[in-house]
Amino acid sequence: MRHKIGISIIGAGRVGWHLGQALSAAGFSIHEVWSLRQSQARLLADKLPEAAVSPSLDFSQSKAQLFLLTITDTAVEGIARQLQLPKGSLLAHTSGSLPLSALQGAAATYTGVFYPLQTFSKEKEVNFSHIPFCIEGSDSAALLLLEAVASSLSHKVVRMDGEQRRQLHLAAVFACNFSNHLLRIAHELLEAGNLPPDLLHPLIEETLQKALRLGPAQAQTGPAIRGDATVIEQHQKLLFRQPEWAQLYKLLSDDIRKKYLPNE
Amino acid sequence: MRHKIGISIIGAGRVGWHLGQALSAAGFSIHEVWSLRQSQARLLADKLPEAAVSPSLDFSQSKAQLFLLTITDTAVEGIARQLQLPKGSLLAHTSGSLPLSALQGAAATYTGVFYPLQTFSKEKEVNFSHIPFCIEGSDSAALLLLEAVASSLSHKVVRMDGEQRRQLHLAAVFACNFSNHLLRIAHELLEAGNLPPDLLHPLIEETLQKALRLGPAQAQTGPAIRGDATVIEQHQKLLFRQPEWAQLYKLLSDDIRKKYLPNE
Repeated sequence: MRHKIGISIIGAGRVGWHLGQALSAAGFSIHEVWSLRQSQARLLADKLPEAAVSPSLDFSQSKAQLFLLTITDTAVEGIARQLQLPKGSLLAHTSGSLPLSALQGAAATYTGVFYPLQTFSKEKEVNFSHIPFCIEGSDSAALLLLEAVASSLSHKVVRMDGEQRRQLHLAAVFACNFSNHLLRIAHELLEAGNLPPDLLHPLIEETLQKALRLGPAQAQTGPAIRGDATVIEQHQKLLFRQPEWAQLYKLLSDDIRKKYLPNE
Repeated sequence: MRHKIGISIIGAGRVGWHLGQALSAAGFSIHEVWSLRQSQARLLADKLPEAAVSPSLDFSQSKAQLFLLTITDTAVEGIARQLQLPKGSLLAHTSGSLPLSALQGAAATYTGVFYPLQTFSKEKEVNFSHIPFCIEGSDSAALLLLEAVASSLSHKVVRMDGEQRRQLHLAAVFACNFSNHLLRIAHELLEAGNLPPDLLHPLIEETLQKALRLGPAQAQTGPAIRGDATVIEQHQKLLFRQPEWAQLYKLLSDDIRKKYLPNE
């Protein structure tokens, strides 16, 4: 089924790549694709039955109602200001960290945020149905339109304001970016011990499943929560060549002890 | 099939509980179970067709050849010294952080380490087949016996010395215990923003799958690796009420930047 809402995608990076194809598959007409690199826009447009590559940021003749900005955060304000848009159009960015007001210089009738909370790789297909969409709108018309579009892709559509989205993004940095870095540290420690890096994989997977099932507070184990000073001291000594990691070890262990053994 | 090797389990906590049942299911005779809390030993022995509860640490009349110490780390040296064991017996502990020499006061002919690299919960069944077993022995007879027993439970049996096991345990603390704590911090940040804690689950799962598939160095994303000073500063400000988390944020971001942008 074709929806009445027409969409243009501005930016053909990883988010635009997956979102454009998913929206097209969900029945929306994607009218134009724009990218600073036209070859990228061409690759994406070739995947979309009705899309043309837009040669410029002049969309004043476009038949689209929704314009999705899927470009990198730092470019959003500048590009938004250069866009020429038809009357009655809704311009939304897809960033977790930018406020709605990043679009205030744009000539759009409505503005909004349409933020899919996921990490995308170009080579891997995305199933959007369980990905939360975080929605914000300049008014209820914008909110309702963005909710309708998001609901056609995902079961999980959440309204939130810019402050909540910033907090969510901060939480994601801890839960994902920083956890990933701890995995890298672990890999390097294994390599330094001439141990295969995949040795820890079963334990890592089980730990995560436990954290998601029980909640991380219930799932915490290890020397810090046991108050095992002998092991903690031994580990600190093993890290004598990596003072930053020793500091990280101490900070994390202290924080765990403080949370679980507050009266110590 | 019944194996010729008889086993006794000393300690009926989470490790003893799962290991005892798995070894019994794999065809080994479990002769005795001992625990400081006899009721615990009884619960486990009731699950094992041939096992009796041992009332004391005197195993001199036991028909077992292998004695597995599955008690808490801090009790290992003391209990090992009190054990009375038959001639020719092999005593092995199951700890990731204790050296083999923790058993040197024991009256065993052979000693070893039999360390399953996993986190156990009593309420959840364990499939040992993919769990790495880390094996060390006082000599080749001990090594071969422990390898044979481990191989009957798991496809992944690895010989390593005490130094490697310590390094592995340290890596596990980073990859599992500390990652779990970062998930807890993320949960608390979500709660502070009135956001549902499961909002991040799809992103957390995808991040982990990516890290295991590509390796964490390839999978790293986020403001630190992008060198996005604006977002980093914004996040630091959001953490003004949690100075420890702000410090953690800075330390982790600096370490990421140093790894990926070493010439900056």
